[in-house]
Amino acid sequence: MRVLGIDPGLRHLGWGVIDVDGSRLRHVANGVCDSEGGEDLSLRLLSLHGQLTRVFQTYQPDQAAIEKTFVNKDAVGTLKLGQARGVALLVPAQFGLSVGEYAPNQVKKTVVGVGHADKKQVQHMVMMQLPGCKLAGPDAADALAIAICHAHQSGVQRMKVRAS
Amino acid sequence: MRVLGIDPGLRHLGWGVIDVDGSRLRHVANGVCDSEGGEDLSLRLLSLHGQLTRVFQTYQPDQAAIEKTFVNKDAVGTLKLGQARGVALLVPAQFGLSVGEYAPNQVKKTVVGVGHADKKQVQHMVMMQLPGCKLAGPDAADALAIAICHAHQSGVQRMKVRAS
Repeated sequence: MRVLGIDPGLRHLGWGVIDVDGSRLRHVANGVCDSEGGEDLSLRLLSLHGQLTRVFQTYQPDQAAIEKTFVNKDAVGTLKLGQARGVALLVPAQFGLSVGEYAPNQVKKTVVGVGHADKKQVQHMVMMQLPGCKLAGPDAADALAIAICHAHQSGVQRMKVRAS
Repeated sequence: MRVLGIDPGLRHLGWGVIDVDGSRLRHVANGVCDSEGGEDLSLRLLSLHGQLTRVFQTYQPDQAAIEKTFVNKDAVGTLKLGQARGVALLVPAQFGLSVGEYAPNQVKKTVVGVGHADKKQVQHMVMMQLPGCKLAGPDAADALAIAICHAHQSGVQRMKVRAS
C-alpha cells in the first residue's frame, strides 16, 4: 500500500510518499509545493493544485492523509491555511481517494512517542523510520510523519478487524 | 462583458451571472451549489468543485468576483469557510480568469447605498437592478450583488483610465 501524506500550507505545502508492507515502511519521495507570496490568491491556489496533482500522477498513491488543522486566534492565518487546505483535500478526492485526517499531537505521538515533540525530534524519528530518506525540508518531514501515522493507524484498524 | 459572482460557503455556495453593457445590467442566471453536511470534507469539496465548474462551463463568464471573507472569532467556522473559498477561487483560475475580491460592506454600499444593509434590502435592490430575475435564495442574491459590485467597480476603473 502506498500512502501520501500532506502538510497543508499556502506558502509551503509539504508532501511525502511511503510504501507500507505490514509493519515495514519504505520511503518513496518527499517534497514541497511552493506558491509565491506576491501573486493573486487564486493563482497561488491554481499553482498549488497543479503541483499537487502532478505529485499524485507521478506516485499514484493508494491512500492519502492530511494534518487536522489546529485553529487558533489568528483568524487571518486560519483563513489562509483553510484555503490551501481546501485545495489539498480536493486533489486526493479528484483521484478517488479518501483522506485520513490526524491531529498534530496524534501524529507526533505515533512517530515520536509523545504528543508535544518539537520539529527536530519529528525529523529525527522520520529519518530513523525511513532509512536513506533525504528530507526536502521541515514541511516535507511533517508530511512523511502524517503518512507514517496513517500507516500505523490503518494497521491498528486491520488488527482490530481481525481480532473481532 | 459577462460577470460571475460567488458567495462562498461550504454548505451553500451562491453564484450569480450578469451581462454588463456600459451601465446596463442584465440578469443571466443564479443558483446555489450545495454540499451535504454528513459527507467527508474532501468529498464535499469535490462536489462543490464539480458543480461550480459546470456553472463556469455553462455560462462562460469573462470575469469573476468573490466576497472577501470577514474573519471573526469563530475559528472553526473560518476554517470551514476558508476551505470552500479555496475551491471557489481555484475554479475561475482554472478557466484563466482573474478574480475581483470585495468586502461585504463594499458590496452593500454599491448595491444598496449603505454599508450595513440587511439581507432583505440587498435582495430587494438586486431584483430592482436586474428586472425579471428570480432568486434561488439569499446566497444566490448575495452572489448577484457581488457581480453587480464588480460591474460598477470595473466601470469606475474604466472611467478613471479615460479621464487620466
